Amino acid sequence: MRIKLTVAYDGTNYHGYQSQVNGTAVQDVLEKALEELFGEPVRTMGASRTDAGVHALGNVAVFDRETRIAPSKIAFALNARLPGDIRIMDSCRVTDDFHPRFQSTVKTYEYRMRNCRFPNPLTRSIETHVYYPLDAEKMNEAAKRIIGEHDFASFAASGFSSNTTVRTIYDAGVRREGDCVIFSVTGNGFLYNMVRILSGTLIEIGTGKYPPEKMTAILEARDRSAAGPTALAKGLVLKEIRYPDYHPEDAFPESSAGEAVGEK
Amino acid sequence: MRIKLTVAYDGTNYHGYQSQVNGTAVQDVLEKALEELFGEPVRTMGASRTDAGVHALGNVAVFDRETRIAPSKIAFALNARLPGDIRIMDSCRVTDDFHPRFQSTVKTYEYRMRNCRFPNPLTRSIETHVYYPLDAEKMNEAAKRIIGEHDFASFAASGFSSNTTVRTIYDAGVRREGDCVIFSVTGNGFLYNMVRILSGTLIEIGTGKYPPEKMTAILEARDRSAAGPTALAKGLVLKEIRYPDYHPEDAFPESSAGEAVGEK
Repeated sequence: MRIKLTVAYDGTNYHGYQSQVNGTAVQDVLEKALEELFGEPVRTMGASRTDAGVHALGNVAVFDRETRIAPSKIAFALNARLPGDIRIMDSCRVTDDFHPRFQSTVKTYEYRMRNCRFPNPLTRSIETHVYYPLDAEKMNEAAKRIIGEHDFASFAASGFSSNTTVRTIYDAGVRREGDCVIFSVTGNGFLYNMVRILSGTLIEIGTGKYPPEKMTAILEARDRSAAGPTALAKGLVLKEIRYPDYHPEDAFPESSAGEAVGEK
Repeated sequence: MRIKLTVAYDGTNYHGYQSQVNGTAVQDVLEKALEELFGEPVRTMGASRTDAGVHALGNVAVFDRETRIAPSKIAFALNARLPGDIRIMDSCRVTDDFHPRFQSTVKTYEYRMRNCRFPNPLTRSIETHVYYPLDAEKMNEAAKRIIGEHDFASFAASGFSSNTTVRTIYDAGVRREGDCVIFSVTGNGFLYNMVRILSGTLIEIGTGKYPPEKMTAILEARDRSAAGPTALAKGLVLKEIRYPDYHPEDAFPESSAGEAVGEK
């Protein structure tokens, strides 16, 4: 049977989510824990290859395995075998045709900026420090301009190739919480480095280098050089991946039932 | 002249704030940075010896040194020489009679509990994970019972000795923010391990082991064994130390002026 995992991690010490030739990726550590649990190698398929240093609260991975462990208990069994910077937040059964990438998805990212004189040492690995005062209202105004279906070619890392650079953004906004300015964006897909380039552009708007209307001009340019710099990886968190057309809880109501204890 | 530093740190990798025989303390690293900056050893006096693993956003240290660096710029100069887990959030001049401990102080601590099935890997070093559901309202009701002047002998680590175990708590409360339950407490002083024992007791009340009224009975017992366990160090943050009777900005208005740039 196919098991879906919700994977959270502090990306600071990993070379991204997906296994690669150089360095340890989150996927390597997850597959090692699965091998420990099941006594033989287990391959996983991940939903999102996050870059080195990028974090996640809701990345998704699946694997196929017959087991007598209840699907919802697999999260507990894996967490007992994982280091503290990776946690499986949920595990449930899905149908064998569920694919974490080819299914239609809605992804939400957040980019956190600590906006005061000095970084906060307690949250330094999950925030980008911005010294110059940011006008969160202007940034929010600019962020709203990317909502809808657009060609985001200006916000793709140069060298990125894909069939299309058109994506749909369902929601985007910037809010201030104390000394933190947070950019939140939800869409049906993101080009390579897109959220970090959007964030770098929003920082330039927030410091007053460009007015909020500039966002629309940058979109229309369809040219990477029109946008701002790529913001640091460490401020970025993949918050959630939803599968709006897929409802495993209908197929397997027992496996997706939460824990009675510890559940609110 | 005497300089006052506001010291923030992630205590995870330190043997507490104050220098000691074994292991590296925050104070050691701070004094090393001061020595690098001034070219000779500089001794500091700290306000609060936090335990190994306890964090701070607003501990206070002072040192005496003639220098042509503007007092407010010393924070920048030190931060350039400190590791990322220690930041000087502010520096200003104080009068030579200012002592960070003997001055009357108002300290605020926060204790953070992540209350869901699994810890959050992004904030795992600054939160204590509590699996069982916590009733934050009942915890808040219990916390309110410690406000005022009381003998806190029940909440001092055994072996702790002091002239008196009477302290005044000005404010205390528990609130929920999403999956986090946060205990905040402000007082004129705290016994050894007092906030962690209060937190451990509040957790027992939050899980329903004891009713909120039990807090008053525990206070009146004046006996460590009446209270709950000492909660883990990593959930505790020393947020702020105020000196209500001391106003250095009146004595040295120029030195305490904030930076024009980066200041909101």
